[in-house]
Amino acid sequence: MSLSAEAAELDTHDPLAGKRAEFDLDPQMSYLDGNSLGAPPRSVAVRLDEVVRKQWAGRLIRAWDEGWWQAPERVGDRIAPLIGAAAGQVVVGDSTSVNVFKALVAAARLNPGRPEILLDVTTFPADGYIAENAARLTGHEIRRVVPEEMPAVVSERTAVALINHVDYRSGLVHELPSLTESLHAAGALVVWDLCHSVGAVPMAVDAAQVDLAVGCTYKFLNGGPGAPAFLYVPTKWQESFDQPLSGWAGHVDPFGMAEAYVGGPGVIRARTGTPDILSMLALDAALDVWDDVTVEQVRAKGLALGDFFVRCLDELVPAAEVLSPRDYRRGNQLSVGWPDAKRVMAAMTKAGIIGDFRPPDVLRFGLAALYVRYVDVLRAAAFLSGWPG
Amino acid sequence: MSLSAEAAELDTHDPLAGKRAEFDLDPQMSYLDGNSLGAPPRSVAVRLDEVVRKQWAGRLIRAWDEGWWQAPERVGDRIAPLIGAAAGQVVVGDSTSVNVFKALVAAARLNPGRPEILLDVTTFPADGYIAENAARLTGHEIRRVVPEEMPAVVSERTAVALINHVDYRSGLVHELPSLTESLHAAGALVVWDLCHSVGAVPMAVDAAQVDLAVGCTYKFLNGGPGAPAFLYVPTKWQESFDQPLSGWAGHVDPFGMAEAYVGGPGVIRARTGTPDILSMLALDAALDVWDDVTVEQVRAKGLALGDFFVRCLDELVPAAEVLSPRDYRRGNQLSVGWPDAKRVMAAMTKAGIIGDFRPPDVLRFGLAALYVRYVDVLRAAAFLSGWPG
Repeated sequence: MSLSAEAAELDTHDPLAGKRAEFDLDPQMSYLDGNSLGAPPRSVAVRLDEVVRKQWAGRLIRAWDEGWWQAPERVGDRIAPLIGAAAGQVVVGDSTSVNVFKALVAAARLNPGRPEILLDVTTFPADGYIAENAARLTGHEIRRVVPEEMPAVVSERTAVALINHVDYRSGLVHELPSLTESLHAAGALVVWDLCHSVGAVPMAVDAAQVDLAVGCTYKFLNGGPGAPAFLYVPTKWQESFDQPLSGWAGHVDPFGMAEAYVGGPGVIRARTGTPDILSMLALDAALDVWDDVTVEQVRAKGLALGDFFVRCLDELVPAAEVLSPRDYRRGNQLSVGWPDAKRVMAAMTKAGIIGDFRPPDVLRFGLAALYVRYVDVLRAAAFLSGWPG
Repeated sequence: MSLSAEAAELDTHDPLAGKRAEFDLDPQMSYLDGNSLGAPPRSVAVRLDEVVRKQWAGRLIRAWDEGWWQAPERVGDRIAPLIGAAAGQVVVGDSTSVNVFKALVAAARLNPGRPEILLDVTTFPADGYIAENAARLTGHEIRRVVPEEMPAVVSERTAVALINHVDYRSGLVHELPSLTESLHAAGALVVWDLCHSVGAVPMAVDAAQVDLAVGCTYKFLNGGPGAPAFLYVPTKWQESFDQPLSGWAGHVDPFGMAEAYVGGPGVIRARTGTPDILSMLALDAALDVWDDVTVEQVRAKGLALGDFFVRCLDELVPAAEVLSPRDYRRGNQLSVGWPDAKRVMAAMTKAGIIGDFRPPDVLRFGLAALYVRYVDVLRAAAFLSGWPG
């Protein structure tokens, strides 16, 4: 069977094939950049219109009492099952960077007398910039380590480790349960960055006893450009969670206007300022696509898409260097080494096959299984095989 | 002439009367809570639909290069004239609380060796919670002072003062130029919170040599519930602006993925994480209502609305205690002492006259001159005169 016939057959028998219709995506588009910006679920535009015209215009200030105020935890509870968390432990708001700051400083305060923060050297640099800010303000030192080496390096000096669940370059998934366990064994806490795994790779943060976690919602959760991030604070740490941006929205009595800050119950105290409702409810609508699918289903298709993509590349483009793991250790992206990566990605994009490029020579293809088809990855491989054509 | 005939005549001759039609507001509604949540300009729903369906769905990741990435400064430049700032000094993003944190820590770093932060004791408590966070992390002491006493209290120990331009309870406008000058004379910096004045009270932050300022956009700028806040960093401080949440979006080469943080040029380095585009562009649309009006016009009508409101209260409700200044020192709200304030506001709201309540016994009425009519404030006074009816 030709790859083309195979792709068609795989798409025909794909149990998730119907989900693509829930997204506002040009049928001609092969969109392989959902790991940077997820595609818009159709429900988002409808919901935003309702939020502006019915809630904001119709109810004005009263809408705060009619669901807006509770939205950060309500939407958080919709994300919770996607990361393996019980309800009441996830709050939505602020950017990922701001949440990394809250989590790192809070973790350092939970583990006093230990002067060092271990930083995943392979993490998205954004996390490193924030870790530097946190370390400077709290007097910690940063030590940059590859996650796999952390168990050998962690010591009684380590307050907390910040690890990205998925290497944004290679797509390698780090072993969350065993790394968490090893770090705990040395008395260190762990903050996980789930940006590249939430909505793509199953995980069980409660079962793994993760201390704190952050994640973004504009990749595989399709919340929209710059959509609010989330912060996971498990029950065990909520009462002692002492964060550096404790703000009025997390106060036990936010409208009491008391001079002294007293944190609210549960995960609410992880809030800072007024929740950003338009973006929050756009995300809420975007999460509707998860109502009838599990992360496990998405993961199965994501791996199958990647396996098929690798076969297409091996067969059609032997020169392409597959940088991502070829097995289950791969997250939901395929990274390909390519000498003129920037130029070829610009040309692919013009042809309606959108992935992204990371300097100096990496093509990244996100495999968002809710809307990516087998034919899309074949198209990408075929384009590379014809380059420069 | 009766108050009722007078209100009608004032509305007829109001040069801003036509602006109300630009808002999606029930004609029967007297909305006097624009100081908490501004009403929605009609342009917002239209723009959001376009952003989701045309930009996000149509352009996907490419939209970042087609205007999204520059939005924080572009929208900031639209706010700049409203606060008397030249272009290139205002960035939009994050919540007010997060921006207060950035501004206070950056100001403290600009003025080292001074152990004290003066905190406006009358400010919205949210600012105090964040000031405590900043002080704890930087090792400063907080000293709570009424703004008018700051010139007497400031000393060589003072690094920075945080002052709210308008007292959120009384509506008193503090004298921004003279207070800034007095504090500068003692070598202190000043961070102004403009939440309750931007879009309502003219000011000239450049001329007054304000050091840093923050403000929210969901009150008199009508950006939407929890809309992103802004941060003003004047040219003189941009190069030395050393903020505690320096993040990837403020990097000189954000897509270069360098390990070391290097701040971008100008006000860009005040950014933290990925800009929240849906909320940012909703605000952008909301700012269209300012295209053909000046803050001075809005201020003139706001004062006239307040003057008329006070006359209505004096005449119809002599028992009402006007807590706000009766002259130009009043901001864009009228605060009224009322024994069962919470109950009466609930009843007014049911009757379609919406203001708000601040514990224990203050009614607040916002006078957003772009959509509030003279008949609205008369209605509010008449309702109070009939209470408990």
